[in-house]
Amino acid sequence: MTIVTKVQQQPEVSKAELEGLHPRELRKIVREGRWTGGTEGLARGYAQANLIILPKEVALDFLIFCQRNPKPCPIVEITDPGSPMITQVANADLRTDLPRYSVYKEGKLVDQPSDITSYWRDDLVGFLIGCSYSFEEALLNAGIPLRHQEENKIVSVYTTNVPCVPAGRFAGPMVVSMRPVKRDQLVRAVQVTSRFPATHGAPVHIGDPSLIGVDLEKTDFDTGVFELAEDDVPVFWGCGGTPQAVALASKIDFMITHKVGHLFVTDKLSEAIAAI
Amino acid sequence: MTIVTKVQQQPEVSKAELEGLHPRELRKIVREGRWTGGTEGLARGYAQANLIILPKEVALDFLIFCQRNPKPCPIVEITDPGSPMITQVANADLRTDLPRYSVYKEGKLVDQPSDITSYWRDDLVGFLIGCSYSFEEALLNAGIPLRHQEENKIVSVYTTNVPCVPAGRFAGPMVVSMRPVKRDQLVRAVQVTSRFPATHGAPVHIGDPSLIGVDLEKTDFDTGVFELAEDDVPVFWGCGGTPQAVALASKIDFMITHKVGHLFVTDKLSEAIAAI
Repeated sequence: MTIVTKVQQQPEVSKAELEGLHPRELRKIVREGRWTGGTEGLARGYAQANLIILPKEVALDFLIFCQRNPKPCPIVEITDPGSPMITQVANADLRTDLPRYSVYKEGKLVDQPSDITSYWRDDLVGFLIGCSYSFEEALLNAGIPLRHQEENKIVSVYTTNVPCVPAGRFAGPMVVSMRPVKRDQLVRAVQVTSRFPATHGAPVHIGDPSLIGVDLEKTDFDTGVFELAEDDVPVFWGCGGTPQAVALASKIDFMITHKVGHLFVTDKLSEAIAAI
Repeated sequence: MTIVTKVQQQPEVSKAELEGLHPRELRKIVREGRWTGGTEGLARGYAQANLIILPKEVALDFLIFCQRNPKPCPIVEITDPGSPMITQVANADLRTDLPRYSVYKEGKLVDQPSDITSYWRDDLVGFLIGCSYSFEEALLNAGIPLRHQEENKIVSVYTTNVPCVPAGRFAGPMVVSMRPVKRDQLVRAVQVTSRFPATHGAPVHIGDPSLIGVDLEKTDFDTGVFELAEDDVPVFWGCGGTPQAVALASKIDFMITHKVGHLFVTDKLSEAIAAI
């Protein structure tokens, strides 16, 4: 296996310069260390994915956990155990091709590097988990506005009181994202997102937040809070933060994830991975 | 773990007596050893599933294989390693709740019992894989006739020249089922089956069989051959025979599957597991 070290040899680029780039070109710039910022709004139309890297000894249980909780944990690709290479949704190296990572030891954040080559071990397995950026574009295309984009905030994320189906050492509540939807667009919002089971799919809950243990004022992870108008209904989708939160809570010796908002950009058009 | 031995204490039942039974009642009769025949046409409306049981040491690679080949290998449920219990799509014991099994050692069929309690080991993992019986009912409901049911044959199954994406020791060609569809019903057939990604989903090929290395006269596994009328188009779907064939070819020490046609009957209505 070739060891790739990310050394910045060319100047950083601005977000404006990245606009319209194909994911391959974008990942090259990221690999060169010239972009270490967030990926929201980049490579529009292409699916992005959450990253979790775990030791092989817990990979089977984690995979069973994801299979049992497909709404929050839709798996997009799994690497061969020991290999950091993505081969299906892109040709890419997980050690260098994301702009920034979070490295955890014994459940504690220890580093947020832009390159994890020095952290890679031969017993690691990489998991890409679907991300809601994909279906958000479909919502916009269907004429359903996204409040957090309009207000330039991060989408609201909440930890519910709904338990995931456990598997081995992995257990915990479902994490959800919330978007306010106008009452007369509810049906369309369900239809549109149902087409994308690989990126969380249909909502897990519509309406009264208290029924899933959520107080709209109290978001997790410093995400946005939105004021609801009278004709706004809060709609909740499974969130890729779930497997991360669950893996973190299980206090695995070693885990690497993408840094929040700094996702893996695939070569797959979101529309190309829709179920129908 | 309670050891359940299947001892027949009541007389066998006829297939006619099983008609209209709920899956729970059907599995009880199967567990009592009173029905060891096929499951096609039973518990209509409920999803059935293929079974593969493998040692834990190959389970991770097998699961990665299935994730990479979702059309032929859609996973419906995975047991906790070491446990034969199904808890999500039914409350059931995989050792007793299927009418008949095939037991393989070193890639060779060694037994076809109606109970595998004596074969169970603490390192085994059970996989339920979606079965096309589910979407066949949806096709019928949409007014698309099924030739093999009309002619009382087994649906045609072929091994293609299309390689699956390999994972670890698991590699091999995709196995498909073929149903002739009238040209003017092609679009509807794609739409209807696309709704069921958990049971193979949309077709993998439409039309000229030679493009996927198939000679329609030469089926695999002694399945049916159908004469095509001029307005018939052969339509091919991923088949649950794929993971079995691939696992068999990889010569795993030990593997148990359902016997062909003797499937696991879930408590889930097919319509309830549709993507949309």
